[in-house]
Amino acid sequence: MQLSEIYKPVQEDLSEVEDRLKALVQSEGASFTELRQMLANLLLGGKVIRPALTLLSGKLFRPNLDSLRLMGVSVELLHIATLVHDDAVDKSLVRRHKPTIYKLWGEEKAVLLGDFLFAKAGELSAATRNLRVVTLFSQTLQTISRGELRQSFDAFKLKQSRDDYIYRISSKTASLFSLAVKSGAILSQASEDEIEVLNEYARNLGIAFQIVDDILDFIGTEEEMGKPIGSDLIQGTLTLPSMLALERYPEDNPVKRLFQDSDRKEDVKLAIEMVCNSSIIEECYRIASDYSSEACRKLDLLPDNASRQALVKLADFVVSRKR
Amino acid sequence: MQLSEIYKPVQEDLSEVEDRLKALVQSEGASFTELRQMLANLLLGGKVIRPALTLLSGKLFRPNLDSLRLMGVSVELLHIATLVHDDAVDKSLVRRHKPTIYKLWGEEKAVLLGDFLFAKAGELSAATRNLRVVTLFSQTLQTISRGELRQSFDAFKLKQSRDDYIYRISSKTASLFSLAVKSGAILSQASEDEIEVLNEYARNLGIAFQIVDDILDFIGTEEEMGKPIGSDLIQGTLTLPSMLALERYPEDNPVKRLFQDSDRKEDVKLAIEMVCNSSIIEECYRIASDYSSEACRKLDLLPDNASRQALVKLADFVVSRKR
Repeated sequence: MQLSEIYKPVQEDLSEVEDRLKALVQSEGASFTELRQMLANLLLGGKVIRPALTLLSGKLFRPNLDSLRLMGVSVELLHIATLVHDDAVDKSLVRRHKPTIYKLWGEEKAVLLGDFLFAKAGELSAATRNLRVVTLFSQTLQTISRGELRQSFDAFKLKQSRDDYIYRISSKTASLFSLAVKSGAILSQASEDEIEVLNEYARNLGIAFQIVDDILDFIGTEEEMGKPIGSDLIQGTLTLPSMLALERYPEDNPVKRLFQDSDRKEDVKLAIEMVCNSSIIEECYRIASDYSSEACRKLDLLPDNASRQALVKLADFVVSRKR
Repeated sequence: MQLSEIYKPVQEDLSEVEDRLKALVQSEGASFTELRQMLANLLLGGKVIRPALTLLSGKLFRPNLDSLRLMGVSVELLHIATLVHDDAVDKSLVRRHKPTIYKLWGEEKAVLLGDFLFAKAGELSAATRNLRVVTLFSQTLQTISRGELRQSFDAFKLKQSRDDYIYRISSKTASLFSLAVKSGAILSQASEDEIEVLNEYARNLGIAFQIVDDILDFIGTEEEMGKPIGSDLIQGTLTLPSMLALERYPEDNPVKRLFQDSDRKEDVKLAIEMVCNSSIIEECYRIASDYSSEACRKLDLLPDNASRQALVKLADFVVSRKR
């Protein structure tokens, strides 16, 4: 199923969110040519899953559409800002089939642009005039940064448990999915129980999403993904496929060799082959599907309408997507 | 005059702000050893001018001390976060007589820690429960980032006017001074006119502060400053002393040579000598003092009490400080 199909119940508002992202290029770049060029390069072409989550969650209840749209722009900008910083620190050259901000303008500008976008996202969250949402926004960026720091400190460490992995991807990915749905629900007068149900949905959805991301870094093609394959291994990030490879083949293992000597780049290709020629990918998809199913089960507790059905479809989408 | 003398009217609250900064090391680092080590390295030993400004501004009016303290911690963390990112992108090795986060942990961790601190600062601003203050916080980080981006895009450009310089330092430095005083005033029920007077005070104070910072990068010693001298020239940042040097000696000039070929590091020393052996420094101090005096004149419009007197003394301090 296509995303555009899933997004139907909120298509109009989502287009408005995308229009506002485009408008930022003009308004923020009005007196600063280089900033305009950077923003124009950046603010278009994403899957807009996070604003869709905010809008769909809000529309389960009594939505305040203006606040929801503001928050939709906020969560997408927050997401984009984290990507800009990720690419800068990972020295990534390509994303979404395009050269990254890091590649085009260098590390210094990428860091400063990311800071600018964090702040713009924060301002938009404050524009909802809901203090709980603003606080949640700041707490989420802390959680994401902690998760990324944890990942950075754990780079090239072989001794990591699956719990460590789930903790890490919950922090760096699922927390932003949680912000997206919780803010949508809070701004639409959901009850505390309903907010918590959506939080659990988003946590499971985010974990499933990241596991699939980590799978695609093994089985995807650069053409489909719009960025190089094997980048997690090159960064020394242990993900579910490489963890399972270490569990299954504890002796001679290219992941092990690579993590003991990061210069052995030839082992990246061997590790990808090892994973792809086993049932590891199947097993990873099974685990991702379990999280996705768990996400859907949570939704049974919420009012049934077109938005809820879309959230279910989105949970199916994240485990079947090819990019 | 010593800062401790100037801070007397708010000494108790300022100590509380410093205690809360220390407490963050424990609370945020409780389950994350490396994060605790990074924070411990970072959160102590600054001049705490920005929280002092928040507290002093608040105490001109009807202060809500709990909110003021929260905001004091917030502005100091925001300041520290910008330093962490500055050091990362400038590859600075020493600050406050200590190795930087960049030097100790590398660029990736420095960027992520800065992000974490921005978010923590944002959360504290939201904890004041004042939406105007939170919005101002986010807008200020945007202004700082724009100023830093402008500086980065203008690196090694010789054609820059004094207006460009004042715009840049207003954005990257004075805007945070403005946030500090405005938030203090807003949280203490000052009138719009009073808030605007303090804003003008802070703008002038911040510009004076940054001009002196830029002077000290020429005439200071590494021992006094706790960081290397001449770093602006090495980064290709044109500041008031080097601008005046270009105006006075438009022909053969080491600043010009360095900006045309950044590899000519020997010209850094020659440029410093040229500036120090002329009346340029005197002229820069005169300009800084004009801004400082203008800052003080603004204060005449506010209620006279110990806090106002301290703000006047602080304006004297920023143009006489040696570090």
